This record gives sequence, C-alpha cells and structure tokens, in this order.
Amino acid sequence: MDAPHIGRLAAGPRNSIADVDGVTVGHCTLDNGPVQTGVTVVSPHGGNLFTHKLPAAAAVINGFGKSAGLVQLEELGTLETPIALTNTFAVGAIVTAQIRHALQANPEIGRSQPTVNPLVMECNDGYLNDLHAFAVQESHFGQALAVLSSDVPQGAVGAGRGMSSFGMKGGIGTASRRVAVGSGKDEFTLGALVLSNFGKLHDLILDGRPLGRELAAAGASDKAPEKGSIIMILATDAPLDARQLKRLSTRAGAGLARTGSAYGHGSGDIALAFSTAQQIEAGSECLNMALLQDHLLDPLFHAAADSVEQAIVNALFAAQTVHGRDGHVRECLRERLARLPS
Amino acid sequence: MDAPHIGRLAAGPRNSIADVDGVTVGHCTLDNGPVQTGVTVVSPHGGNLFTHKLPAAAAVINGFGKSAGLVQLEELGTLETPIALTNTFAVGAIVTAQIRHALQANPEIGRSQPTVNPLVMECNDGYLNDLHAFAVQESHFGQALAVLSSDVPQGAVGAGRGMSSFGMKGGIGTASRRVAVGSGKDEFTLGALVLSNFGKLHDLILDGRPLGRELAAAGASDKAPEKGSIIMILATDAPLDARQLKRLSTRAGAGLARTGSAYGHGSGDIALAFSTAQQIEAGSECLNMALLQDHLLDPLFHAAADSVEQAIVNALFAAQTVHGRDGHVRECLRERLARLPS
Amino acid sequence: MDAPHIGRLAAGPRNSIADVDGVTVGHCTLDNGPVQTGVTVVSPHGGNLFTHKLPAAAAVINGFGKSAGLVQLEELGTLETPIALTNTFAVGAIVTAQIRHALQANPEIGRSQPTVNPLVMECNDGYLNDLHAFAVQESHFGQALAVLSSDVPQGAVGAGRGMSSFGMKGGIGTASRRVAVGSGKDEFTLGALVLSNFGKLHDLILDGRPLGRELAAAGASDKAPEKGSIIMILATDAPLDARQLKRLSTRAGAGLARTGSAYGHGSGDIALAFSTAQQIEAGSECLNMALLQDHLLDPLFHAAADSVEQAIVNALFAAQTVHGRDGHVRECLRERLARLPS
Amino acid sequence: MDAPHIGRLAAGPRNSIADVDGVTVGHCTLDNGPVQTGVTVVSPHGGNLFTHKLPAAAAVINGFGKSAGLVQLEELGTLETPIALTNTFAVGAIVTAQIRHALQANPEIGRSQPTVNPLVMECNDGYLNDLHAFAVQESHFGQALAVLSSDVPQGAVGAGRGMSSFGMKGGIGTASRRVAVGSGKDEFTLGALVLSNFGKLHDLILDGRPLGRELAAAGASDKAPEKGSIIMILATDAPLDARQLKRLSTRAGAGLARTGSAYGHGSGDIALAFSTAQQIEAGSECLNMALLQDHLLDPLFHAAADSVEQAIVNALFAAQTVHGRDGHVRECLRERLARLPS
Repeated sequence: MDAPHIGRLAAGPRNSIADVDGVTVGHCTLDNGPVQTGVTVVSPHGGNLFTHKLPAAAAVINGFGKSAGLVQLEELGTLETPIALTNTFAVGAIVTAQIRHALQANPEIGRSQPTVNPLVMECNDGYLNDLHAFAVQESHFGQALAVLSSDVPQGAVGAGRGMSSFGMKGGIGTASRRVAVGSGKDEFTLGALVLSNFGKLHDLILDGRPLGRELAAAGASDKAPEKGSIIMILATDAPLDARQLKRLSTRAGAGLARTGSAYGHGSGDIALAFSTAQQIEAGSECLNMALLQDHLLDPLFHAAADSVEQAIVNALFAAQTVHGRDGHVRECLRERLARLPS
Repeated sequence: MDAPHIGRLAAGPRNSIADVDGVTVGHCTLDNGPVQTGVTVVSPHGGNLFTHKLPAAAAVINGFGKSAGLVQLEELGTLETPIALTNTFAVGAIVTAQIRHALQANPEIGRSQPTVNPLVMECNDGYLNDLHAFAVQESHFGQALAVLSSDVPQGAVGAGRGMSSFGMKGGIGTASRRVAVGSGKDEFTLGALVLSNFGKLHDLILDGRPLGRELAAAGASDKAPEKGSIIMILATDAPLDARQLKRLSTRAGAGLARTGSAYGHGSGDIALAFSTAQQIEAGSECLNMALLQDHLLDPLFHAAADSVEQAIVNALFAAQTVHGRDGHVRECLRERLARLPS
Repeated sequence: MDAPHIGRLAAGPRNSIADVDGVTVGHCTLDNGPVQTGVTVVSPHGGNLFTHKLPAAAAVINGFGKSAGLVQLEELGTLETPIALTNTFAVGAIVTAQIRHALQANPEIGRSQPTVNPLVMECNDGYLNDLHAFAVQESHFGQALAVLSSDVPQGAVGAGRGMSSFGMKGGIGTASRRVAVGSGKDEFTLGALVLSNFGKLHDLILDGRPLGRELAAAGASDKAPEKGSIIMILATDAPLDARQLKRLSTRAGAGLARTGSAYGHGSGDIALAFSTAQQIEAGSECLNMALLQDHLLDPLFHAAADSVEQAIVNALFAAQTVHGRDGHVRECLRERLARLPS
Repeated sequence: MDAPHIGRLAAGPRNSIADVDGVTVGHCTLDNGPVQTGVTVVSPHGGNLFTHKLPAAAAVINGFGKSAGLVQLEELGTLETPIALTNTFAVGAIVTAQIRHALQANPEIGRSQPTVNPLVMECNDGYLNDLHAFAVQESHFGQALAVLSSDVPQGAVGAGRGMSSFGMKGGIGTASRRVAVGSGKDEFTLGALVLSNFGKLHDLILDGRPLGRELAAAGASDKAPEKGSIIMILATDAPLDARQLKRLSTRAGAGLARTGSAYGHGSGDIALAFSTAQQIEAGSECLNMALLQDHLLDPLFHAAADSVEQAIVNALFAAQTVHGRDGHVRECLRERLARLPS
C-alpha cells in the first residue's frame, strides 16, 4: 500500500514544498540512543530574509504550544528569518541560533537596525526523545542550514526524528498542489511541510477511510494520552498579503481535521503561510504590491487543505520505526499495515 | 440509503441539540412562490436570558458574514438572548425583533438596565429565495418563538427553507453526542444545530466517501459559484466558561472540513457554543462557577466535530426538493442518490 | 474658554474628517421632546462603495457594543458601505436601510453579486432619548445621506443628539492633523470623527488638566453609572492596507485614554480606520497597491491619537445643553465652565 | 521635584506590585562597561507555579516584540512559570533557564507530565547595552530568583539596567492602587511593574503636563529613532478569570497613552495581568472559581491605568544616569530637571 493521492488537484513535480520556487529545506538529525530529535529549517528564499522579508501570517488553531516569533508576525505580517522547527525544550537554543545567524549577515541588527524576530516552532517529541538531555545545540541550526536543498527527505528526519503521530511514527511530511486561478487561469503552486506529532490511533482517517479503527481492531493499542502537536508550513508563489495568508493558513486546519484530528487539547496545532511572490525590502519607503483579489482564493484554499492532509499522510508513509529513550518504540505505519489481515 | 452515523461516539436519544436539557428550537417557515425563507430560533433555556445569561463564545472560521452580536459576545462571554437564524437581508428586522422581545420581559433595558445584545446569525438563501422581497418581518421571530419545542424538524424549514448545500438542498440539521469525561466518567451531552448553506457538489464527502465526485460523474452539475455559508450552534451541559467554549466552537470547523469544505472565501463559516450548566445572574456581584479542567476536554472536542459533521449530513438527508424564485430549483440528496447507477 | 489645540501637530484647514479629500458627513437629527436621537453618516468617497471598496479595519478596544459589520470587515479588510452611526436600538433599522441603499445602486446584490456588508455603529443615548420609542426609521438614513457635506456640524446633532459624555452633553466631534512622512516628507491628512458618549465627570482630563475634578469640586455631580460608549472613525489619504489600518485604529485608544477614559466596562469603545488613497474595484482579479512601509507610520499614529483626543474635546465644546425624556437634562461644558469660580 | 501621585486612587503601603500579597520581585543586574543589562523576575506566588497555576492573560497593544509564551497563555489562560524580563537577545537563554527551573521542581515535565510554557518578555536595550555580547546567561535567571523579595528596587536595575525612556534613562518602575469594589466595598489591590523602554522626549507627558516639550525647549535633544518597547505586568488579588484579566491588561494601554505614547511602530507594547486570588491545581478535574462580575470591574480598570502610568513615572524618577557601550549615555530625569530654568 502506498500513500493515496488526496483530493482532486494535481501535485507539483516533487510533491513537496520545494515545488514553490526558491523554497529549500534542511534537516539536522540527532539519532543517538535516547536522543532522537533534531532541527529542520524551511528557507523561503535564498537571499537575506532580514533585508528582503516576505509577507506571512499564522493561524493558531490550538495554542497549546511554545512557538517563538508569532507575536511580531501577527503585527507586521512579515517573515524575516527562516522557519526553524525543533523540539519543545530546544526553542531557546534555536531562538539564539537564529539571532546569531541573522547577525552574521546583518551586523547592524540591534545597533543601527531594529532587532530581528526569530521564528521557531516546536512539537514535543518526549515519548521517544530524552527531552531532559537538552541535546539540541545552537550549532545544529547551522548544520540544518548547511544542507538546505530542494530535495526534501521525509519521515523520521530533522525535527521529525522523535515525533509520533496516531500512536505510530510521525515526523516530517511534505506535499504540493498546482492550481489555476482566475479567468486567465494563472497557475500557482502551493506547498506544505508538516512536523506531524499528533493524533490517537483510533482517530486516524486515511483519505476518508477510518484506518485507525481497523488497526486498533487488529490489536494495535494506543494507551498513551495525547501530548502531541503539529506545525504546518504553507508556501505559495501566488501574490498574497499577510491578511490573505492568514486566511490561507486557517485552511490548514481543514486538512488536519480530515485525518481525524479534532484539535486535541494538548496538541499545539499551528499553521504558518508565506508568499514568495514579492519581497519587502527593509528600509524602502513605499511598497508596490500586486495582489490577487480575495474572490479568487478558493482554489488556493483547497490546495492548502489538500496539501496539509497529503503531507500528514506522506509523513506516516515515509516514516521508519524508531527506538528511543527507556525502551520506547514507535512503529511505522508501513509495518503496522503489513500485519493487518488482508 | 440513510444518513450514516458519524464517528465513534453515541448519539443522545433525539440525536438533536434538544438532547441538551432545556434547549428548544422553533421554526417560522415562509414558503410562497419566490419567497422561500424563514427564521429559526434556538432557545438555550426556558427562563429570562437577560437576567440569567449563559457562558458562550463564537469562533469565526471564515468571516464573510453579517451576523450581529458577536462583538459583545467576544468581550463578555455571555449569551443574553436566544440565537436567531435567518437570511442575510433579514438581520436588521430580527435584530429589532430580538430587542423588542427582550424589552417585553425586561422593560428597564435601556433605562435603568444596560442595553441588550441581540444575537442574529445568517446565511444567504438568495439562490432560491427572493432576498429583494425583504419578506422576513419582525413578527416572524415571534412566530418561531411561539413554537419552541424539543422536537426539532430538520431540512427545508425555518431559516433553512431556502438554503443550499453542495449544489443541493441544504437547511437545518441537528445531532448530538454523549461523552464520558474524567476519571469519574461524568456523562455530558453535546448537541449541534446547523444552518447549512455551503459547499460545491464536487467537494462533498459523506462519512469519508467522496460522494460529490460520484454524483458529479453521474451527470449532476454545479456551475453556480459558491456564495454559501454555515452557522453551527453547539450546546452542552458540561460546565465550561467562555474561554473553553471558544475552544469548543473552534472544533466545529473540524466537523465542517470533513464534509469537504475548505472554508470557501464567500462562505461565512461561524460557530457558536454555549453551556447550560450554570447561569450568570445579572446584578449579582460574585459568581461561583464549577468548571471542568481543560485537560478533560478532548471527548467534548470530538463530540463537537462529530456532531457538526452529523448535523450537516442530517440536513442533507432531511431536506426536500424546493422550487424558488425565477425557476430555481434545489434537488434534495435523496432524489439525487436515487438516480445514481447502483 | 475655547477648545485647546491638542498636541504638536497642525490641523487641516477645516480641522475635520472632511479634510481628507472626498470624505463627507451628513446628519439627520430627531429633536422632539423625549425623542432626542438621530443618524450620522460618514461617506468615504462620492462613488459607489460596493463596486469601489476601500481598505479598512477596526479595533475593538472594549467590546460592550452592538455594532454591525465588523466580522466581515475583520476578514476582508474592506469597507463597502458608508459608515452609519445611530443609537443602540436603531441598529436593525439602519442595517436594513444600508442594504436597501446599496441595492438601489447595485441591483444584482444578492443575485449575481454577493451580499453587502452594512456597517452600522452605535452608542446608547438612553439617558436623554426614549430608546423605547424606536424613533429612528429607515428613512432617516436617507435623510442623512441627502445632506452629505464637507462642512461637518458638531455637538448635539445627528447620532450625537442624545449622547452624553463625562456627565455632560456629548455628541459628534471631529478634528484633523497634517503629517509629513518619510524622507521625502510626503504630506498626508488624517481626520477623526467621534460619536462621544462616554466618561464620568470626575475622570475628565482636558489637554492634561484634571478639569473633571475641578468641576466636581465646584458642585457638579455625576451620580449615574456609566453606560456610555464611543465610536471613533479615522480617515486618511495615506496609502495603507487593512493590516496597517488596524494598527492605526488601535491608536484611537491612546487619544481616548488621554481624556480620562480607562475604557469602562459598559462602554463600547470601537475605532474604525479607512484609507481613501486607493480603491478596490469589485470583480477585478488583481490589485496593484502602493503602500507606505510600516516603519514610517509613527507620525500617522500620533495624528490618530491627537485627532481623536481633539475630536472628543471638540464635541464637548460644540455641544449645547439638551433636555430629553423624563426631565433628564445634559448641560453642556461651556455652561458648566461659566459657573466655575474664576 | 518628586514623582507626582497619578490619579484619584490611593496607593498600597509599598506603592509596588508587591502590595499584592505573595508577589515578589528579583533582579540580576549586569553592569560592566558596554554590558548594561540584566534579568528581572516577577514571582506571582511562593509555591510551585507548574502545579498551582494562576489565571492570566495578555494584551498585545503593539506586537513589535519577541516575547515568548504568549500563544499558550492566550489559549489556556494560565501562568505556570514566573514572569522573566530581559533584553531582546537574551530571550532564548532565559526560555531555557525557565524550563530547567521548572524541571527542578517538576522532574516529570516532558515525561509523564505536559511540557511547561516559559514566559519571557523583553525590551531592546541596545542603545546602552552591547546586545552582541549575549551577556545574559541562563544562570542570571537563577540569580534573580535567588533574591526575590517584596522590597522592589526600581530604576536602572535588573532587566531595566540598559533601558531608555523618552530619550532619558528608563528601566523598572512599580506602583499599586487600592480599590473598593461592589456594594460591600470589598477592598482589592492592584499592582503594576513595568520594564520601561519607550518614548521620544518631545512626547513625554508628566501627570498631564507636557514636560517633554519643556525639556526639549531647554536644549535637550533626542535624535535617535524610537526603537523602544514597554512590558507592563499587572497583579491583583481580585478574583478574576483569564477573560477578565485580558480586559484588565488592555487598560494598561490607557496608562501608557497618558504618558505620551501613541504606541510607536517599533515599540513592543505588551501587558500581562494575573490574579493571585485562586490557584488552578494541575491534575484536578474540576475547578471551583469565585469570580467578580464584570459590571464591578471599573475601579480595577482605573487602578490598572493609573498604576501603569505611575509605574512609568516612578521608573523615570528612580533611574540614575547610565553610561554604556560606545560612549552612549542616558541621563536620568532628575538630572535633566535640575537643569531646567526655574
């Protein structure tokens, strides 16, 4: 069984967030006994984000989360660092790493220039990973940056190394959709990347099929209380502003719901969307923005929902079984499926 | 084919919002050639809501809507009138009707007492109904109030008379779920009532099955642009405050998404949740509230998502074909299903 | 004593919201014994707002209010009707009047075009005005529209007829400021119009002077509990989008605070800002927007705060004493000041 | 000249946030040439905050800020760590320090218990302090905790060491007010502590007097662009829930505005309020909360505005002149006043 194609829209050539031109992803994976964790960086463009910001916005679907950077994002609607994903206890280290990285390229930050808003999002990988080891260091952010690529490994890699989903192995998943917008049928790409760490087995719905109930009936158990989360990153080359990107990010919640989530109390479910179509040059006085009108957004809204659902599914199918701290194991979906009576 | 049961939770005895003790519903239906519209009232308790308010909150999932009363609800977290549902152009009339109704029971409103916050929510039934006739009058609110009952008719009734969903006949749907919460397994009921007026045929998912694609392949067409909306009312007897009810109302969006919605641009998707467990007496100085802790809310969150999905499905199955203005017709799901090749 | 000039910025030629080119205001005043109320309309431009919308946003500083239209404004960031101000019980009538007015110019609203979002904001004038008379009719909206002018009467006129402020006569006030922005020193105008109906006498601060305490010490009393509100409308010709206008509207609260308000519980304190610089043509597919960068906004922020403070002060100085229902009287500030020991 | 008393309400015995029973404050001050910075901790009660949380909420008045912890605070309405204040580049270190501190008392965090939400708020002290030195270490958080006291030093101490306000030396200020609430005249205390780092000299208003203009006219200059911020912490022993505390925190903006602020673009103006009246025990299933009704809140709203204004004034009067990096100096208000022509 392979990952089903979600919805009616076509995927881009890589079926990945890197189908949005300029977007790259890098992972730093820590796999060392009880340390099963890491850092993933989504780089929205190859230039200097502090001097060439992008319109961006976030939707906090369930705010049981410790992400950093969302207050200023809400106020100003701009992304000025790459997006870093990591575990809950590593947010502090990666916040500092982001600042140092921005300073390297922009030494006047905090002197003649304003301070920088480091964006770090997280999930709790404490079932597999020994959070108390505080294994993620500032340097791991740089290691992830060093391997930025448009080829995006999925599953138990980077920040996804220790993540769990539906009582099985979760992690990084990505997907994309192509849509035609407006009467001129302009084509745009929307890509999603998720750090998937949510869900109880019973609730899993795979492309409409209540697979979680079937797996549970076949003997898989899931006794642990949900302490998950999911971070959902959306990128698009459609020309949108921050208000519109907030609307877009809200649609990530639709894709999430279709996999069986009811946005559990303890799950920090947060989506962030950015547009690569236009850069906001720091220091300039006037912007000239070309923007799609809102009444054209429905294809992009469906692309957002479908890409997120697909990315969650892809994370499950890409994951491998991981053994972590204290004998904890998360079996991957493929192995569980293999044990289902046919 | 009958409406499938959604999810793993059991319904209450009526599978209706009226399973929450004290909640009643009344419809006033206008069915007169090009006038196909009406008013539906959800009454949270049988007493005086202005003097005995209930904790309540709303989630604006997509704010393309003209509902009245949500600003004060957000600030104070209380419901002080029944919830009225009607068409978009009737909001003004029903706002005034709500005020007059509150004045009848509380003649000092706007004199020695504060003003009242009338809660009126709406969808656009202009495909079937001649909105320009402004057919809904203040008196229709009273007629709906006069027939409040715990027996809740569904489908093309009340405010649902002229509504469309997935290119077919939509309208009023309701459902409920029972959940056990906490170690003591306290049982609570959650009920949903929807005014369902959203969706494109191709997108319809029925309990995980992409039924919309099947119907479309069988020749049904849906050319009209989506100009819909959905109002989702959640009632529960679980003791929750406004902050928690906002969390609950957000989960209505999960149920909505599972039917195929990506929260379309032109669809005002708004959920409102209230708790009947405790009344807030106007004029008293101190409240003593017993509240569930948030870490116990997951069963209620699933009940909210499942009840809303079920209520949308029930609206489709309960609806009858309606002929409206200018030869417009909305066929009901049952008739479309009957034409599917078996 | 005349109204002091607030702050360090220069006013426009009219010191009024009509200093923003294209903005006009019309009042319909009802002055008939116990009926002391009315309607005020702020028209952002002389064309068809439904087809040529403006970027706009609101800040709900204290949401004890019953304004209509703010949900969609928050989602889409556009103004598509004039802004109507009236009393709390008249919102329903004026909502309907707004829809009918939009239909006259756009008969396809609710048919081939989407529905219209009527914007109606309100304060409670029930101390002077007999709210229970429901004296404001739909036709009064048209009467206010019929006298739109760039000459803006202030004080006890239009929606301000029955309003109270600091235990004295409140009502309509307006003001403007001119600011130079950026290195090129581009000049922009910001105007404010308030419907001022808030405040306890003791709290009044006039340009930094605790005048309320002085008046109270001189024998004026203010026993009634505060049941006020203030609506603050900001217009500017600076090119801003909805996100930036939300930031601007938040600064109205700074001006309000400087007059002595702590945003009282029962006071619906709501600000709305729009930009006339660029129109959003309905039906077009792409917008080309020129926007000031956020780091240039400080002069406009000060202009917003100062204009609102000035408009509140101007409302007090422009008001005349009004006798209303049941022998209620609100003396105007000028008469109170005349009785202060010199 | 001494700091004037702001407003009509009486201060508590210490005129400090520590007048709220159980609240203590500790500073760790770094004063070493170009390093002029530190950490301040506000401890809401003497027990284990993770197991005995407090209701809390924040108002983001202007979100140009990098505070951590506000997403979860908004969702759950609880404070579960002390509140740490520091410089912008030290947020990462102090986030990690907060987690480690919570782990010491609660070793099952991130294992059998959920993760902890570290609350760290910041201002940019880069004018005086060499931000690039990253001088604040995790251990400085512990040093601040070690000196928690109900005696609260003000001015250029702790996180306030390098802060500037109105072109002069800013820093830590605190104040309190006592209010009688309701018919029984129950007495409650509200205290404020600010990290004051905002404002341009010309704008300074001291208790209604435009002192900034006078100082500027006397030759003081203030050419630097505003890159400030202010963090405003409110504590009260009044029994309020998170929704009410959000209302309370919004009133901090009124006090801020009265000192001359228009919430500048580059100023992260954030208020946080908590109530010590009732603790929320982790793991319990039901809360019993006694809550003041909202219509009694006005005295507390005035106390919030006045305490914040007073705390800002107190910070200015308590500060001493500080010499920092690269020959930068911030003169204190007292010295400037001494040079004013009498």
